Amino acid sequence: MITVNEQNKQQIECESRQKMICPKFERTFALLGKKWIGLIIDVLLDGPRRFKDIASAIPEVSDRVLVERLKELEKEGIVMRTVDPDATMRVAYALTDKGNAFKGVMNEVQLWADKWVSAEDCN
Amino acid sequence: MITVNEQNKQQIECESRQKMICPKFERTFALLGKKWIGLIIDVLLDGPRRFKDIASAIPEVSDRVLVERLKELEKEGIVMRTVDPDATMRVAYALTDKGNAFKGVMNEVQLWADKWVSAEDCN
Repeated sequence: MITVNEQNKQQIECESRQKMICPKFERTFALLGKKWIGLIIDVLLDGPRRFKDIASAIPEVSDRVLVERLKELEKEGIVMRTVDPDATMRVAYALTDKGNAFKGVMNEVQLWADKWVSAEDCN
Repeated sequence: MITVNEQNKQQIECESRQKMICPKFERTFALLGKKWIGLIIDVLLDGPRRFKDIASAIPEVSDRVLVERLKELEKEGIVMRTVDPDATMRVAYALTDKGNAFKGVMNEVQLWADKWVSAEDCN
């Protein structure tokens, strides 16, 4: 605990109740706030991937949950399922423009992580 | 479904299995991926707030869960609890430097939301 100084106190008075969360921001965090969603998008920012490659990049996620999350991302128009008819209908997942537009968010998360997360925090 | 073109196919081949999620990135998303955490940080980016002001900015979160999330953020060194002894020990919550460093992430989320989320999506 620290003591609030006069300036902060004044700020609390002035800005009290002014902020309301932007519904679009809230909607975005409702999506990003789902477990594994951010990691799946980050993997796909490097290019299209087959299911097993996404799964092996995020070993903690079960196949069942990964399928579920990819379906949600497809429904949101962030991921598209692609199929290569030449290679015995091999399926891959790719980001749409809407998905690729998360690049800036992911870059900022990585910058924050590099600065504020220590190796010990990851154990 | 769309058909993967030759270039994408090659990319899938070449980059297959290369990407592993950075543990620091993963740790950051494990935090941001908890419901309400992003919204709480966003509210506090505007300055210190009392509990009831955070609660009224995010009406969907229950007091019990908000208390829990603020404790988690304190434990992570992202939020600090402050107390003003002059005002009958009035408690407020403020971001630490580590918390304020999320500004870039939140700006990018807002930019994405402004571009890709429609008003109808928020209903």
